Amino acid sequence: MESKDELFRLAQERQYQKLMRELDRMHEVDIAEFMDALPFEKAIVVFRLLKKDVSADIFSELSPESQERIIDSITDQELSAITEELYVDDAVDMLEEMPDYVVKRVLGSARPETRKLINQFLNYPEDSAGSIMTAEFISLRRRMTVRQAMERIRQAGLKKENVYTCYVTDAGHVLGGVISFRDLLLAGDDEIIEDIMEEDIIFCYTVDDQEHVANLISKYDFLALPVVDKEQRLVGIVTYDDAIDVIEEETTEDFEKMAAMLPSEKPYLKTGVLELSRNRIVWLLILMVSAFISGKITELNASAIAAVPELVFYLTFLTGTGGNAGSQTATTIIRGMAVNEIDPKRDWVQILWKELRISLIVGAVLAAVTGVRLFLLYGKQPMFCVTVVLTLYLVIILAKSIGCLLPMGAKLCRIDPAMMASPLITTVMDACTLLIYFQIAKQLLSL
Amino acid sequence: MESKDELFRLAQERQYQKLMRELDRMHEVDIAEFMDALPFEKAIVVFRLLKKDVSADIFSELSPESQERIIDSITDQELSAITEELYVDDAVDMLEEMPDYVVKRVLGSARPETRKLINQFLNYPEDSAGSIMTAEFISLRRRMTVRQAMERIRQAGLKKENVYTCYVTDAGHVLGGVISFRDLLLAGDDEIIEDIMEEDIIFCYTVDDQEHVANLISKYDFLALPVVDKEQRLVGIVTYDDAIDVIEEETTEDFEKMAAMLPSEKPYLKTGVLELSRNRIVWLLILMVSAFISGKITELNASAIAAVPELVFYLTFLTGTGGNAGSQTATTIIRGMAVNEIDPKRDWVQILWKELRISLIVGAVLAAVTGVRLFLLYGKQPMFCVTVVLTLYLVIILAKSIGCLLPMGAKLCRIDPAMMASPLITTVMDACTLLIYFQIAKQLLSL
Repeated sequence: MESKDELFRLAQERQYQKLMRELDRMHEVDIAEFMDALPFEKAIVVFRLLKKDVSADIFSELSPESQERIIDSITDQELSAITEELYVDDAVDMLEEMPDYVVKRVLGSARPETRKLINQFLNYPEDSAGSIMTAEFISLRRRMTVRQAMERIRQAGLKKENVYTCYVTDAGHVLGGVISFRDLLLAGDDEIIEDIMEEDIIFCYTVDDQEHVANLISKYDFLALPVVDKEQRLVGIVTYDDAIDVIEEETTEDFEKMAAMLPSEKPYLKTGVLELSRNRIVWLLILMVSAFISGKITELNASAIAAVPELVFYLTFLTGTGGNAGSQTATTIIRGMAVNEIDPKRDWVQILWKELRISLIVGAVLAAVTGVRLFLLYGKQPMFCVTVVLTLYLVIILAKSIGCLLPMGAKLCRIDPAMMASPLITTVMDACTLLIYFQIAKQLLSL
Repeated sequence: MESKDELFRLAQERQYQKLMRELDRMHEVDIAEFMDALPFEKAIVVFRLLKKDVSADIFSELSPESQERIIDSITDQELSAITEELYVDDAVDMLEEMPDYVVKRVLGSARPETRKLINQFLNYPEDSAGSIMTAEFISLRRRMTVRQAMERIRQAGLKKENVYTCYVTDAGHVLGGVISFRDLLLAGDDEIIEDIMEEDIIFCYTVDDQEHVANLISKYDFLALPVVDKEQRLVGIVTYDDAIDVIEEETTEDFEKMAAMLPSEKPYLKTGVLELSRNRIVWLLILMVSAFISGKITELNASAIAAVPELVFYLTFLTGTGGNAGSQTATTIIRGMAVNEIDPKRDWVQILWKELRISLIVGAVLAAVTGVRLFLLYGKQPMFCVTVVLTLYLVIILAKSIGCLLPMGAKLCRIDPAMMASPLITTVMDACTLLIYFQIAKQLLSL
């Protein structure tokens, strides 16, 4: 591959002919990346110089900003050529990011059939199978021979991977069977599709959640999953590469929720400061208001603190450790449920029992270390040392229990378990830790 | 699909013939899931009744426990048949989970060539491209015609998706080109491979990190990526389904590290209590010892607390909010770098500036809410209120700055940024918050 700097130099020096020769040898994804990084007046020159057969492919890989600016600077006729050449799902992905006037212009430039298809796709609920599916797939008939099927595939001449799984449809486009290209290739030319197709089909509905669809593709290692409407008519397919994108997108959303943020629609660098602030303020406020409770608990125990001021020195130490111990468990359980390794209904007893034993071991080790340190420092106040060590042990047991029960409970109540991650657990644990700490202190130190 | 309960009933009532008819209509992944859930004495009966042509496929989908028990109860001859039928990478995956005596028996039962190949794969570094690649792929020669190539593919008769990308190798297996099956299909029968193949190949080395390989496949939407050794000889391919598994595995590892745990090798439910405890104790201990610092800071300010006892009531409130604000930023940045949206070297100024503005907005809102509450409660101690509110504002600005600088710094120093996630940030922020709090208190309250 040519080095990026060299390509930039060629664009800078307007050696476009040489530049196009270099680009010709590169993958579309890399060309798009290069064009996104170019100053726009250069990018539009390069775009116009691209060969017609790859320009739509490259266009679909460009950033929404570059796409918008290119649309703004080409004629209706050029725009129409691109729209017709784009895969429907790529066109829809693009339009979802565009301002209204661009959407109108693109739809206006499309042929009526294309416009209808795009509008239909735009109407599927966000994050549904319908919104990520592709309309380009190969459909065969039951009574075709393998030879006829091969001819059909050759004529369809689809791009990308969509040729490798073929779908057999009956009258009214009802999905009847599926056959891989490999099986067609290994079958005799005169065999009948119906006899060699797979009839027990794993499929999804247009309204199914995209995460469910991605999980099916990942579980069965499918190249593509057929999507049907409620009358079982085949309307599209979701391909493995879209499944990979969905998995990454959903994971990012989990990360955001688990760090107490509202999920953002766009990549971080392209999201405005106001939107990012809003996404973060909501949960920070909720957690902050709940943190007032910790303050109240401390306030109610002001007399204990006045009597034994050392109690204060271990406040953040105890709340911090409790929070960390709880986050560990919550993260493990949330991730386990996300990848379907853990089923709360089936496994909750086993998990609670496991976490209990873990917390006994972990708690013992941490309590021992803390104990040694405390007795060295406060050997003359043995009951104070016992108070801190005992609180630490109990807090760890409680943290691990809450850490597994909250996410599993959320899942059972159909709340997103990612909401129950460290920030919430930490805040809940802060209050619990203080309650336990002062209660034990009162008993042991007779306050 | 037949309901699971019905299948269990059939196994329970020993209606094996009927059961096998039902299984025959199911996907291998589902059959394996069903067999994993069966009591073992039933599972082995079902396994022996499976058709020979699917039994290896199903075997490779079983849990390591089931695999081990099946190996223990079949003859050497049966074992040999399975080993030869398995894909090398599936065999290697399995052997990595097995105790030594099972590995010996499996290797002993394999043909010399198979044994050599398995041993070679077992020697690739863990988490390298070599350790996840498949040895089954189609290689063509430059001078072949399309007709000859098609014949070659038909004869190889590979399973799965590995037929859809073909690799052109020169003398000594050196990778020279790549051609998709779709292009072969659309080309004329007499065209020469060399003329239609793609020569600018994107590939990886056996020693490359599996995460890098998965990212390439995801970026370019490849079905498979060729793997070469240091002499550029083609030794295997990594397929998209393995890439999906790697992405999920690496994400789980990130989640674990970000919650202060050592990554575990096995799924949670199958990991022992001792191992889980060990994975969690290491970081809890490190964080706990650093939390002693917070204790020390509080202790050094005991006189301030004695003078204004109200200061204590807002300790956990301030440390908690600071920790949460820091985690938000750290998580955003770590995830952004993991999916290659953020490049610390290129973007750090932009990010720091963005986080600074976000913290000014977020801080202002939280400070306003806290301010109103405090003045209602402690209207007679205005300087105390100012102390808390000012600390809160400064802590949020600091938390957001540390939250983006620590992970980016780690990445630049080639430390895994996931280490710098909420638990570490929270602990660092605890100490910083206390320092700021007491410093401001001393100044404003003249202590």
